[in-house]
Amino acid sequence: MIYVDNAATTKMSKTAIHTMTAMMEDTWGNPSSLYSIGQRAKEVLEKARADVASVIGAEPREITFTSGGSEADNQAILTAALLGEKSGKKHIVSSAFEHHAVLHTLNKLEKMGYEITLLDVHENGMIIPSELEAAIREDTCLVTIMTANNEIGTIQPIRELGAICRSRKVLFHTDAVQAVGHIPLNVIEDNIDLLSASAHKFHGPKGVGFLYARKGIRLTNLIEGGAQERGKRAGTENVPGIVSMAEALKEANAGMEKNAEHLVKMRDRLIAGLKEIPHSALNGDAEHRLPGNVNFCFEGIEGESLLLLLDDKGIQASSGSACTSGSLDPSHVLLAIGRVHDVAHGSLRLSIGEDITEADVDYLIKSVKEVVEYLRGFSPIWRDLMAGKKQFIL
Amino acid sequence: MIYVDNAATTKMSKTAIHTMTAMMEDTWGNPSSLYSIGQRAKEVLEKARADVASVIGAEPREITFTSGGSEADNQAILTAALLGEKSGKKHIVSSAFEHHAVLHTLNKLEKMGYEITLLDVHENGMIIPSELEAAIREDTCLVTIMTANNEIGTIQPIRELGAICRSRKVLFHTDAVQAVGHIPLNVIEDNIDLLSASAHKFHGPKGVGFLYARKGIRLTNLIEGGAQERGKRAGTENVPGIVSMAEALKEANAGMEKNAEHLVKMRDRLIAGLKEIPHSALNGDAEHRLPGNVNFCFEGIEGESLLLLLDDKGIQASSGSACTSGSLDPSHVLLAIGRVHDVAHGSLRLSIGEDITEADVDYLIKSVKEVVEYLRGFSPIWRDLMAGKKQFIL
Repeated sequence: MIYVDNAATTKMSKTAIHTMTAMMEDTWGNPSSLYSIGQRAKEVLEKARADVASVIGAEPREITFTSGGSEADNQAILTAALLGEKSGKKHIVSSAFEHHAVLHTLNKLEKMGYEITLLDVHENGMIIPSELEAAIREDTCLVTIMTANNEIGTIQPIRELGAICRSRKVLFHTDAVQAVGHIPLNVIEDNIDLLSASAHKFHGPKGVGFLYARKGIRLTNLIEGGAQERGKRAGTENVPGIVSMAEALKEANAGMEKNAEHLVKMRDRLIAGLKEIPHSALNGDAEHRLPGNVNFCFEGIEGESLLLLLDDKGIQASSGSACTSGSLDPSHVLLAIGRVHDVAHGSLRLSIGEDITEADVDYLIKSVKEVVEYLRGFSPIWRDLMAGKKQFIL
Repeated sequence: MIYVDNAATTKMSKTAIHTMTAMMEDTWGNPSSLYSIGQRAKEVLEKARADVASVIGAEPREITFTSGGSEADNQAILTAALLGEKSGKKHIVSSAFEHHAVLHTLNKLEKMGYEITLLDVHENGMIIPSELEAAIREDTCLVTIMTANNEIGTIQPIRELGAICRSRKVLFHTDAVQAVGHIPLNVIEDNIDLLSASAHKFHGPKGVGFLYARKGIRLTNLIEGGAQERGKRAGTENVPGIVSMAEALKEANAGMEKNAEHLVKMRDRLIAGLKEIPHSALNGDAEHRLPGNVNFCFEGIEGESLLLLLDDKGIQASSGSACTSGSLDPSHVLLAIGRVHDVAHGSLRLSIGEDITEADVDYLIKSVKEVVEYLRGFSPIWRDLMAGKKQFIL
């Protein structure tokens, strides 16, 4: 089996599983309790907070643990929106290819009277800083732009975007779910006010994430109740999950440079191989791209069949975000970079993991080539294209 | 060590830990993915949903998995409030001793223009159904009353309260976090529309819970984003946690009758022993009470010192809800049943677990007697009481 859907979820590392199991056995007290087993849980919880903070250059008190990236995105955006409202600022700048946790939250705010400007992400899936500069208004309270896209892997010039926000005194949130643990991030140097992350994207457990909020930003609760997380996120802390996440993050961070070097080599070999398929195209910028992300469109085929046939060959891939794979609509990300419906439907995302080998890559290339060719043999669209009844786009 | 704070959190069962570990190793795919490892995760997720539903007499599609009881409470109440608003109904009935996840959500709604009526819970910590009947108005959209109180353990006549709500066409939510897995519950027979539960209260993992919503009730999202949980709760599903919760719940349910019989015997022995302490009183009704809950006030002492000295004797207990144990304010639950501040400060909650023995109970009685006597020796309030400068209340 070659698992190439690490952008959807990753297998937990041995350390992360071991930590989780050890905590469930031994450190299961409620960290709000005064007695020894509770205080031990509190200690490991605060150690995890310091560890997580340290990886992104934050202070421990700037980290709030959540149930995942979506919750963190929701809370970050709601916080900035309500802070904005207090000073009459109800305009938010984002981009057309954000994750649905961002876009759907913005939809909700739109219904509450906020005005949303979505920046163009252009053909290469990149935001142009001057366009952000131009979009910010007097009444802008928040800019939210993802660090790296979950489908096409493009990495935005976060530092530059953050600097623009800072100079215009606008809060800057970044959904860094695909980036944390994979590429270097530092909330100070990168001018980030709010940042969301999810453990299961860096070999940590599912159901855990965190929200960084620069000190001075008073979070709005999404979940009201007990006084956990300085009163900003109610509910008994998931100590085993949180500590396991911290261990996974430290591990990912320590191996980041070496992993990235290997991944980039494998990624570029894979891209070069798939480019040989006629009427195919890489989605997203080739350079400003996550080390593990490959995303292609193949004209004349349908993504779902491609996935099922690859699965038969032991390859587990996806055609876009896992969150919407049940949907028949083409990816909003591919539409945002200008792919037409037909082409967007024929997409394939291969998000490779650190343990991938050259032999794996070669098998992937061979398999995708075979499957694309096979499917085109049955495709009425492909027949029309070949007969000249339809024009090729790619 | 005798752990008697099972209302704060429970140790995970061997089955629950084993399930979690096995899932982390083998069933870590994203359930939204089309390929085999994703579909396997989807299957166990849906099996867990059916298992959980079956325990409370619900249908699988009526179960939404959440990050815990607090999130479920928030989502249930917000849902009912927004449904009410649509038909101009903005009045909610609850009680003064609900969990903060309920009370703080109601506070938020109050600021949004909702009117809240809190029912009296009387000296014995019980709600009188006729008082609920009288409190419901033409514009009432929700009644939210906890099944069993987390501090004093009183069990409300849920079925009767639910029937009143049904006859008045008002949604009925119950925070059943302390009840699920401990006492029998059936959403049909008990006339429940919305119910919240948390895994770590019944020997399942932390960071997982569920919300039951009767079919036909369209949930409002607390977390916006991907289409998971029928679009009503975004975020990659915590499959290992959810399946582990389902296993823990089935186990708790299967052993419920036998456990309850043992617990009631141990509880009543403990209550009888502690009653021998002069100027003490049981908090909450003696009969309508969770099998594992004992809660006392001891006049003239301070709960925190009591806990620390008990911890020295290997006893891990609490003075009230873990969620607020950092606070210096006395428990809102004890105030709600009419305890004055001084007395409420001297409270002790012993929430016993299924493995408790008669010898443990006798050691608990002996230890609490010793510690109360010891602390009273130092207490200026006790000195004043003994000198007749202050009147005894208990």
